[in-house]
Amino acid sequence: MSTDSYKRGWDKLMEVDGEGGQRVIDSLKEIAPDLGRYIVEFAFGEIYCRDGLNIKQRQLVTIASLTTQGGCEPQLHVHINAALNVGLSAREIIEAITHCIPYTGFPRVLNAVFVAKRVFQERQVEVAG
Amino acid sequence: MSTDSYKRGWDKLMEVDGEGGQRVIDSLKEIAPDLGRYIVEFAFGEIYCRDGLNIKQRQLVTIASLTTQGGCEPQLHVHINAALNVGLSAREIIEAITHCIPYTGFPRVLNAVFVAKRVFQERQVEVAG
Amino acid sequence: MSTDSYKRGWDKLMEVDGEGGQRVIDSLKEIAPDLGRYIVEFAFGEIYCRDGLNIKQRQLVTIASLTTQGGCEPQLHVHINAALNVGLSAREIIEAITHCIPYTGFPRVLNAVFVAKRVFQERQVEVAG
Amino acid sequence: MSTDSYKRGWDKLMEVDGEGGQRVIDSLKEIAPDLGRYIVEFAFGEIYCRDGLNIKQRQLVTIASLTTQGGCEPQLHVHINAALNVGLSAREIIEAITHCIPYTGFPRVLNAVFVAKRVFQERQVEVAG
Amino acid sequence: MSTDSYKRGWDKLMEVDGEGGQRVIDSLKEIAPDLGRYIVEFAFGEIYCRDGLNIKQRQLVTIASLTTQGGCEPQLHVHINAALNVGLSAREIIEAITHCIPYTGFPRVLNAVFVAKRVFQERQVEVAG
Amino acid sequence: MSTDSYKRGWDKLMEVDGEGGQRVIDSLKEIAPDLGRYIVEFAFGEIYCRDGLNIKQRQLVTIASLTTQGGCEPQLHVHINAALNVGLSAREIIEAITHCIPYTGFPRVLNAVFVAKRVFQERQVEVAG
Repeated sequence: MSTDSYKRGWDKLMEVDGEGGQRVIDSLKEIAPDLGRYIVEFAFGEIYCRDGLNIKQRQLVTIASLTTQGGCEPQLHVHINAALNVGLSAREIIEAITHCIPYTGFPRVLNAVFVAKRVFQERQVEVAG
Repeated sequence: MSTDSYKRGWDKLMEVDGEGGQRVIDSLKEIAPDLGRYIVEFAFGEIYCRDGLNIKQRQLVTIASLTTQGGCEPQLHVHINAALNVGLSAREIIEAITHCIPYTGFPRVLNAVFVAKRVFQERQVEVAG
Repeated sequence: MSTDSYKRGWDKLMEVDGEGGQRVIDSLKEIAPDLGRYIVEFAFGEIYCRDGLNIKQRQLVTIASLTTQGGCEPQLHVHINAALNVGLSAREIIEAITHCIPYTGFPRVLNAVFVAKRVFQERQVEVAG
Repeated sequence: MSTDSYKRGWDKLMEVDGEGGQRVIDSLKEIAPDLGRYIVEFAFGEIYCRDGLNIKQRQLVTIASLTTQGGCEPQLHVHINAALNVGLSAREIIEAITHCIPYTGFPRVLNAVFVAKRVFQERQVEVAG
Repeated sequence: MSTDSYKRGWDKLMEVDGEGGQRVIDSLKEIAPDLGRYIVEFAFGEIYCRDGLNIKQRQLVTIASLTTQGGCEPQLHVHINAALNVGLSAREIIEAITHCIPYTGFPRVLNAVFVAKRVFQERQVEVAG
Repeated sequence: MSTDSYKRGWDKLMEVDGEGGQRVIDSLKEIAPDLGRYIVEFAFGEIYCRDGLNIKQRQLVTIASLTTQGGCEPQLHVHINAALNVGLSAREIIEAITHCIPYTGFPRVLNAVFVAKRVFQERQVEVAG
């Protein structure tokens, strides 16, 4: 991968995840810097920069995937923040998580909603009815 | 659950999944009719009829969830058809599946893409670049 | 879904999960009240009220499913309490979790047993040999 | 593990899985005979021979675990047969699978029900209402 | 990502997966060519080209990961072939899969062993005792 | 299983997991002593004592399996310690976890790397470049 995809990825990471994303990359510096680099270059420099879906659609897909995956509460924390950053409403985030009930069951959905609850409290966002 | 949610769910199932959905419900008639009823009343009569996300957004979430869940190729077949039915393009479907790579890895994404390939061939749909 | 299934579900939730179930529903009030409603109406008003298995059998199935699913420790905490509430012994609960080893491996079983350990300590229940 | 647990396990395997279990062990003979031995000695000679749950309860737990695990259709085929062998009714088997909906979602439940459908047809068993 | 990582990745893909890998990339050409490109550039051009583990160690890790993931039988078919290509013995492959029993249970291990059985038959490889 | 496999397993457990393994077995004494016995007799007395892979290879497989399984952070803590105990370097452990990205995605890999980070800090081990 090239310097280009790193720079493009970093800008996208800042746009989408902001501070939460930077914290993840920083926390990898001593232990697994290349893992941080792959997140920047591949996940953000390549996948997130693709055409064909806009950034709000991508963030819906991310939240559905992390909710269903299970055991990804730290990543959900980053990406629910990201969803707000790119303009999804708290309501849309809760709807996306709720929509996963038939596919993955209540427990994973509850786990994701409680992460959302914490993010919304931290950012003092309310879920409009 | 009430007669209302069944009727509302059936209409929604027909709108979204069409023939593929009807086949699933029919195949449950002898063995587990209530399972079919729950899919109609709960998944379609309740979840799919919610406000807050439009039907295209819901179908993106469904595809991301099924791709990530793994081992759900028959359900992906129904819901990739459904995605086309509600107006998502083949390109958007492929993008939603591709977007799951960083979260769930290549194997589940490959499995989902090969289901999409089969659906697009059956319906003679092309993925515009 | 109807008022009927809500009322029936609430009674069943109280019988099975008791206080622990109420806490989950309460914690959803501000953020995702419909998620709480679905748990009451669908999971308890429909599924738990079905004939064909008694409540102890259902709770064995719930514990096996949550143990295998993984990452559902909060839900296991509620449902191991529920298992005691409906009359399963501590021994039967440990046996059901242990029986999952061949299907899901030691790590998920250990995670579930440690939740059971906490519940039994909180309720001062002993596992008879 | 000892000769004892092998013999005890083999008898239990024959009682529970019968012919379907023997076929699995046989199919491992050339490629991984010890894997077959572990299934006999550990899964059947130890786990299935434990006290604290009776054989019907154990088989309910097995079916819930395999349904939730996902991607285990061949093992479900063996163990739904086993469930009938040990005296669970077709209705109880369908109920156990259906009860997993709230915990693991519709797709894994559908996959398991379609395996049950095949087993019931092969054995000409009907699901009494 | 750059032309360099594509070329490096293609050479590595040919070395490791050979024909099986090429077939996967080819099958994506019409439907999702970038998915094929990412497999080449990222999975093979980056991850597989890293120092710190040799190619046999990497292939052991791959097989353990795919066995545990579940529902990845097509990818296991490619990567069990790859394991033989890079010099792991049939015995080592079976051992790696068998070693996963305590962590992921018998069903996923059985599914992986039956894929290995098919590969070994196709290549007329025997498992030395 | 026999006294032999318990003794052999205990010695292997001490060699591989050391204190961390003993703590797990001890914590099961009151609640599920047989679960502890199965870990000793089966996982360590049988699986870990097999020929065909050396102990370092086995530990690579274990780490890949636990990383991919997800939700097994406590078990990863024990087994990353074990990996150091048997002579794998911090670098090799990080590489094994990193190698799982293409198969299981970034979130599970991040979760595992953060466990490794904690273990390395506790043992004051550095990851050589």
